[in-house]
Amino acid sequence: MFQYEKFELIFHGEEPQGSWSVIDLQAVFTCEETEKKIFGFYAGNGTYIVRYLPQHTGLVQWEVSGLFTARGQEECVSCQDGTHHGLVKPSGTSLTYEDGTMCRPFGTTVYAMMHQSKELIAQTIETIKKSPFDKVRTCMFPKHYIFNENEPERFAFEKKDERGFDFHRPCFAFWDAFEEMLQTLGDSGVEVDLILFHPYDWWGFSRMTRAEYLPYLHYLLARFAAYSNVWWSLANEYDCMEAFKAEDWECIEGFIAENDPYGHMLSCHHMLQNYDFSRTDITHCSIQGDVTNVEKYMERYHKPVLMDEFGYEGNIFCHWGHLSAFELVHRFWMCCVLGGYGTHGETFMDDKDILWWGKGGTLKGESPERIAFLKEIIRELPGALEPVPADFITAEKLEDMRKGLYQEEQTDFTRALLQRTPEEAAHIIEGITRDTRIYTGHCGEKAYLAYYGRHCTAVGDLELPKNHTYCIEVIDVWEMTRKTIATGTCGKVEFTLPGKEGIAVLAVAEN
Amino acid sequence: MFQYEKFELIFHGEEPQGSWSVIDLQAVFTCEETEKKIFGFYAGNGTYIVRYLPQHTGLVQWEVSGLFTARGQEECVSCQDGTHHGLVKPSGTSLTYEDGTMCRPFGTTVYAMMHQSKELIAQTIETIKKSPFDKVRTCMFPKHYIFNENEPERFAFEKKDERGFDFHRPCFAFWDAFEEMLQTLGDSGVEVDLILFHPYDWWGFSRMTRAEYLPYLHYLLARFAAYSNVWWSLANEYDCMEAFKAEDWECIEGFIAENDPYGHMLSCHHMLQNYDFSRTDITHCSIQGDVTNVEKYMERYHKPVLMDEFGYEGNIFCHWGHLSAFELVHRFWMCCVLGGYGTHGETFMDDKDILWWGKGGTLKGESPERIAFLKEIIRELPGALEPVPADFITAEKLEDMRKGLYQEEQTDFTRALLQRTPEEAAHIIEGITRDTRIYTGHCGEKAYLAYYGRHCTAVGDLELPKNHTYCIEVIDVWEMTRKTIATGTCGKVEFTLPGKEGIAVLAVAEN
Repeated sequence: MFQYEKFELIFHGEEPQGSWSVIDLQAVFTCEETEKKIFGFYAGNGTYIVRYLPQHTGLVQWEVSGLFTARGQEECVSCQDGTHHGLVKPSGTSLTYEDGTMCRPFGTTVYAMMHQSKELIAQTIETIKKSPFDKVRTCMFPKHYIFNENEPERFAFEKKDERGFDFHRPCFAFWDAFEEMLQTLGDSGVEVDLILFHPYDWWGFSRMTRAEYLPYLHYLLARFAAYSNVWWSLANEYDCMEAFKAEDWECIEGFIAENDPYGHMLSCHHMLQNYDFSRTDITHCSIQGDVTNVEKYMERYHKPVLMDEFGYEGNIFCHWGHLSAFELVHRFWMCCVLGGYGTHGETFMDDKDILWWGKGGTLKGESPERIAFLKEIIRELPGALEPVPADFITAEKLEDMRKGLYQEEQTDFTRALLQRTPEEAAHIIEGITRDTRIYTGHCGEKAYLAYYGRHCTAVGDLELPKNHTYCIEVIDVWEMTRKTIATGTCGKVEFTLPGKEGIAVLAVAEN
Repeated sequence: MFQYEKFELIFHGEEPQGSWSVIDLQAVFTCEETEKKIFGFYAGNGTYIVRYLPQHTGLVQWEVSGLFTARGQEECVSCQDGTHHGLVKPSGTSLTYEDGTMCRPFGTTVYAMMHQSKELIAQTIETIKKSPFDKVRTCMFPKHYIFNENEPERFAFEKKDERGFDFHRPCFAFWDAFEEMLQTLGDSGVEVDLILFHPYDWWGFSRMTRAEYLPYLHYLLARFAAYSNVWWSLANEYDCMEAFKAEDWECIEGFIAENDPYGHMLSCHHMLQNYDFSRTDITHCSIQGDVTNVEKYMERYHKPVLMDEFGYEGNIFCHWGHLSAFELVHRFWMCCVLGGYGTHGETFMDDKDILWWGKGGTLKGESPERIAFLKEIIRELPGALEPVPADFITAEKLEDMRKGLYQEEQTDFTRALLQRTPEEAAHIIEGITRDTRIYTGHCGEKAYLAYYGRHCTAVGDLELPKNHTYCIEVIDVWEMTRKTIATGTCGKVEFTLPGKEGIAVLAVAEN
């Protein structure tokens, strides 16, 4: 067996009695001191599988019990072709693969990818492989929504009757196709942020009872946990799912945390009210909204911040689906320089109603190639970016100034602020900070990346440490050009800029 | 004498004893039942002037008293060349000239226009005359600020000594030049929004005592009130002028209201804390900040809303001075469709440090011709625009829904909102309204103007009254094109749009 690649034990027998989702088949895999308890699953047609993900090299031993019993062992070796890096794990506010490689995902969104025709699914997968995107947000259950009104050929479970599904009867063809996608994308280095529940539904998947969702989750973990490129997203817009209460989310989260042997990335995405990302098992923040909040979430949760939904390039009537390509690229840059990770989406009207964000197909927009350009720059950096705080008085400092705790010369502006209530002053400071900020990130003293956004200034400056020398480049994020404007420089460096929107400046320490 | 044009009585004598700003010369002008009390002023070189603005046609009689005595009469006739329309006056939330002509000003900003060389002043005036701008914000006192560091040749008053000015000794050359500007621009239909005080000062004008500012205001009113194109702006950013207290502003406002015989437009401009525009003598709101607040100010004050400062096209390092031309044009459109009146400014770096917003000169930007295009569209409208409310739930309606007072089918979204506190919900609603809004204004049922802003939607619709038929045009605000897409239509009209930023749709009732 190869490290980071799934390993399977296959058994054949009669079809199971009772539930086909939860069966009496388990295994313990041991590698040195590490022991993993695994569920087996029924794959249909008399086939039973125990699927294991080896995370370490060395001798792996197993013992299967239940419907089948078996023991065995095999050496796990490193594949060394560089394709697989293991699971993604949080590392402070950044991400690394298990093999230590940095992970800086550039996501896209195809919610109902797996509920389309075979041909369309294949086309979508090919498109992702050729795109800059190495993470895709997609749903287990089909989506019922504008531009998503087609009935899928098959679902994760078989229909019980007119009124519902039998969550003890997986639809094997669906799971097989899903796994083919996971494998293909995994082999191409693409992470799959798997959305387990969502509200845009008319089949009843958003109203499953605990007795229904637990077998689903059991089967899901048994089959998918051995794919190293899977992330668990409890839901898309969990806070719009009326039938699921706080105790359901706790139960679902707890069940996954307890039964995922490997600790895949785990979060829950909101519409208005973010999930409590401080919970121990939640690995990262999965955010909808303003990308400039990256810093706020980092400070609050000390976890990686994935801006998973901040509007899509397109031309549909919905406000979230008719951003210009520039606006989407602009948001990506703000997100990335602050050390967040962005997720793209595309919603162009289509004769056949195939909108990328819903069904996949091909990409039509002008943002992906600019995101590829950004990705190239981010990947060259010597580490993960962390935000440089805004260069403007904070509400906290102003209050300290009010109390005489912070000594700094008052300006007309701070005097005017001090005439307002702390709440009013904070609101004003927030607005001006947003208007004035040049979003800047740094990798320690090794690199600084400043994004000027919509500021058309013709002059700029950076304050660089004096114990290094730096090479400075001016970047045009739309035209995708990079121009070196200085080398061997440090300290306060002033430079001219093109005086247009979408300009960034990168300073990298030499040597 | 001609209606709406200044009329002067000139006297000659010795120079005044004591103050040259406040002299013993006054007049009463009577036209039918209307009586106006006027101050005369000393114009230097032994010349004394009593200056009157006739607002009505008919026989005008006068009686001069004080240093000189005189009586006389003359018929005031209409000039009929169409140049002068009288003072601008508020009319609800819109503006009209005294002769009934609608006033829809498109402003620009040249703060220190009159503190430059004669040649530069002449160039600035020529530029304004050729521009779309028919209102200019400019200061009586020079400006000390970045890009404004030159010492003027002369000031409104003569220097007393090294330490200050003698506010009883006007500098006649300064006032003469100022009047030449007022006259020239007035003859070209340009209103002058005259800023009486401002904080950006190192000469002491921002720290004048009451004993200093009252003679200044007396002299100002005596000389300038007879120019029909003058507006009084008590200050630029009054709230940054530490030395002026609330009672100073009340005194200044009261003095002007009492001693301006004609009732010129009167407001006071802020940085952070708006002036109390509800005060009786304040004719309009003069706002700094987000143009989308037009509606809020209209609702609160029921007065015309002039968005006098919302950033400038340019490339200087200050955030308010490096907007792209598109952004400035975009803000103008939002402001205008809501029925507000916008003010332009330009801050491009210049070899000679001549930035339009400070010193004037020539215009370099790409926004003025687009503002001219907008002005043409606005001027064709059959009346003043009023805002069409945003098509989104309001915080008030949500609270009624919470209390069961507002019956409407709840959506996932309203259910999610109702789980938040009223304050949180209001904040969310404000954000989404801002993101989703298609800014739309209407002139009764005669015309609708919808501006799609940064929304790149490929489809749009309007709900038009059914008792008229309409002609619909699609407007590209940047390319300055207009295309008729439908005629003879009404009711719910759907149409395709170019799917790019900066698109507006105009529907005008036929016949």
